[in-house]
Amino acid sequence: METTKKAIILFSGGLDSTTCLAYAKSLGFDCHALSFRYGQRHAVELEAAKQIAQALDARHIIVDLPISQFGGSALTDSDLPVPAHQENSEIPVTYVPARNTIFLSFALGWAEVLETYDIFIGVSAVDYSGYPDCRPEFIEAFQKLANLATKTGIEEERFRIQTPLIHLSKAQTIQLGTELGVDYSMTISCYQANEKGEACGQCDSCVLRKKGFADAGLVDVTRYVH
Amino acid sequence: METTKKAIILFSGGLDSTTCLAYAKSLGFDCHALSFRYGQRHAVELEAAKQIAQALDARHIIVDLPISQFGGSALTDSDLPVPAHQENSEIPVTYVPARNTIFLSFALGWAEVLETYDIFIGVSAVDYSGYPDCRPEFIEAFQKLANLATKTGIEEERFRIQTPLIHLSKAQTIQLGTELGVDYSMTISCYQANEKGEACGQCDSCVLRKKGFADAGLVDVTRYVH
Repeated sequence: METTKKAIILFSGGLDSTTCLAYAKSLGFDCHALSFRYGQRHAVELEAAKQIAQALDARHIIVDLPISQFGGSALTDSDLPVPAHQENSEIPVTYVPARNTIFLSFALGWAEVLETYDIFIGVSAVDYSGYPDCRPEFIEAFQKLANLATKTGIEEERFRIQTPLIHLSKAQTIQLGTELGVDYSMTISCYQANEKGEACGQCDSCVLRKKGFADAGLVDVTRYVH
Repeated sequence: METTKKAIILFSGGLDSTTCLAYAKSLGFDCHALSFRYGQRHAVELEAAKQIAQALDARHIIVDLPISQFGGSALTDSDLPVPAHQENSEIPVTYVPARNTIFLSFALGWAEVLETYDIFIGVSAVDYSGYPDCRPEFIEAFQKLANLATKTGIEEERFRIQTPLIHLSKAQTIQLGTELGVDYSMTISCYQANEKGEACGQCDSCVLRKKGFADAGLVDVTRYVH
């Protein structure tokens, strides 16, 4: 009896990673969605992630990451010495240093335990915010690293970092997801969604998303604050 | 006025990372030691790490990592027994999935915030336990990744993953540390040290350490259980 191949999907509950999850599912993978709680995210977004994972029949884990400790904010652990000074106060609240590197590392750890070799990440090099860790070169370098870092990787170079959206515009991503039956009203992209999961309509992420629906010629099902 | 260059040192409070920290300090770096609490059985080593960092005048942060959520290692999974030392080339059950990848990713995140470019890790490709993520190829791949993942990296390829112990035997590491004035009685290497910080004397890590002191012709100051 053949078992279904497992895949790990880095999953925020946003438009891109939901499309990515739906795509991995359409390929026949047994999907394992991995989300992170790392300070700046609203609980409502993780709640959305949970519901979407359930709707798409994926196993879902939320991992607590204390990345915000590095952001220069007061450290939460009372055992830790508070930094003497901050060199850089210009890092925005939404910026997470080395984010995709850290996320992919965790995915790799889980993958090793599950004996899974396919890791999906919904990065796009077309409509993105300019972060270096969304580019194809970065993904290729991580895949190489994954195969050097692990038992199976060394023997067979089996790890694959799958990026189905990397050459898609936001509009194309939305078209793909729509064909796959994604209900985008469940997804939250907004950096500052409110407790009801309503989007501000004005942040970077909202503007990209709005334009995506418009360019795709589809009705924007996002719930905006009025 | 020139400011002292900062460095991040991955720091467990063990023999290797303590030597690494002392070495970075001897090079004149302003040392930032990074430890992780990841469900390891030998939690007493974090207390040792704190004291050593203080003694060596390094800033020290302990980050909570929920790696054990993934299971799969005798170091973090209390259902798996820590085996006695075995002479074979297989990757041992004490291997923590993707550990150094995850640790280095966090170091990179902190480095970005601190505007630091030197990350020290005390891996050795000589006397080691056969973990794939201790090899020079792995380190080189991570350095490449670091420079692709970050803004400064792309522009100047400034990140350096420094591995001063990579070609040293355990005995040579101990000799180096002794020359640098390291007090090895403060360090804990044992995979299952007890609450007093006493070593079992039988696990992989203890056997390597014992042999190191013997080969170096130095008195083994480790506190063993009797």
